[in-house]
Amino acid sequence: MTKNHFNQKKSISTFSESSSGNFFSYNPWLLFFNSNKISYQIFLLQPNDIILFDSRSRLYIILLGSLIITKVFKSTHKITLNLLTTGDTFGQLELSNDNFYYEAEAIGKTKIVCINYNTIIKACSNYPLFNLFFVNHLICCSEKAYHFTEIISHKSITSRLVSLLLLLAEQNGTQSNNGIILNFAMTHKMLAQIIGSSRVSVTRILSELLKTKLISIQKKKIVVHSPVLLSQRILNK
Amino acid sequence: MTKNHFNQKKSISTFSESSSGNFFSYNPWLLFFNSNKISYQIFLLQPNDIILFDSRSRLYIILLGSLIITKVFKSTHKITLNLLTTGDTFGQLELSNDNFYYEAEAIGKTKIVCINYNTIIKACSNYPLFNLFFVNHLICCSEKAYHFTEIISHKSITSRLVSLLLLLAEQNGTQSNNGIILNFAMTHKMLAQIIGSSRVSVTRILSELLKTKLISIQKKKIVVHSPVLLSQRILNK
Repeated sequence: MTKNHFNQKKSISTFSESSSGNFFSYNPWLLFFNSNKISYQIFLLQPNDIILFDSRSRLYIILLGSLIITKVFKSTHKITLNLLTTGDTFGQLELSNDNFYYEAEAIGKTKIVCINYNTIIKACSNYPLFNLFFVNHLICCSEKAYHFTEIISHKSITSRLVSLLLLLAEQNGTQSNNGIILNFAMTHKMLAQIIGSSRVSVTRILSELLKTKLISIQKKKIVVHSPVLLSQRILNK
Repeated sequence: MTKNHFNQKKSISTFSESSSGNFFSYNPWLLFFNSNKISYQIFLLQPNDIILFDSRSRLYIILLGSLIITKVFKSTHKITLNLLTTGDTFGQLELSNDNFYYEAEAIGKTKIVCINYNTIIKACSNYPLFNLFFVNHLICCSEKAYHFTEIISHKSITSRLVSLLLLLAEQNGTQSNNGIILNFAMTHKMLAQIIGSSRVSVTRILSELLKTKLISIQKKKIVVHSPVLLSQRILNK
């Protein structure tokens, strides 16, 4: 369907006892799955790899990395609905129909867990603590969807881009001496796709922000020097 | 805090056995609460009544009517984050801080149930079927948040307004001989607030849609004659 259509061959491992000692076993989901012998799969996505949602039977958990969730209308256009990062989940959307389908596109290298939705529901009824964890997780998901709505509610592209940079700094930034470094390099094209604009506009706005020293670039990553000063570039009519 | 700040005196009834025979007892939430003797309160909101979220300790369930969820920045402006209707819930958002708070504003007459969040969590652990219902409900909530993001992702106000009318027709419309009648009268000011525009712009766009016979007004309610024709007014750059 698309060139980079997600390929099952990219699976790097299916859960086995031997993998339980690695970094990701400290992830709350994996800790729970491992200790209760619940099987799952781990996939590694490369930048621009795409997962198509063709059924709501699977839940995907992002172990590390970022994806954008897009609604693709078969006739004309795409709408970015959310930006997901480490710890977020997806897959529980309505099915595609004749007019549209949903896809998730990796921004950088992304590691995800895939599990049958029925397994999650069964785990909820068998393990009350996991159930509480899952309910709280779903509530956090609605909150995060609102953060994205906030970005996209701006009509001005500058305001959308500045809001996006502020959200990325808050959710995926590392504090350094001279500001907050965004944890992944993102192409201008990708930024444009997220905020519903063109690459040319994004390049123009970023140049302005660089010129006024509100941001800088370090090893291909954006550094936000002061979130307060940057937020003043948001135009609130 | 606001003039129409939601007032506890507007409570019309606290659950009692005597009220279990009315229409709302067929609501799945109330059926469950009633049959398990779980106590809750019902409130009636008038148009423009506002509920402020000052703690995440309560869950509100909309029995009938519609509300808009707004993030209010104490300094400057408001952002509408979602439009909720019959069957939706709210209240599970992060607390306000020094910069902002959340509010829910009734569009028309709205009947809501208020219940302690702890009661819901306790019910989830005691009643597996209710738990499954609640998890599915939360998943539907994320889907609905995406519907709103879709409206607001348009930069053009005409496209935003047309998308909103289409969503309202789908979620709150009644099919009649000459089209879909939206189930509540909404002021131009309210429509403007939802899509982040001005009353003047909304009035101008609605006049255009009336003139081109894409919509008409019947007893103060908007009638969408053909969703397909109307959707062609959305500008997809």
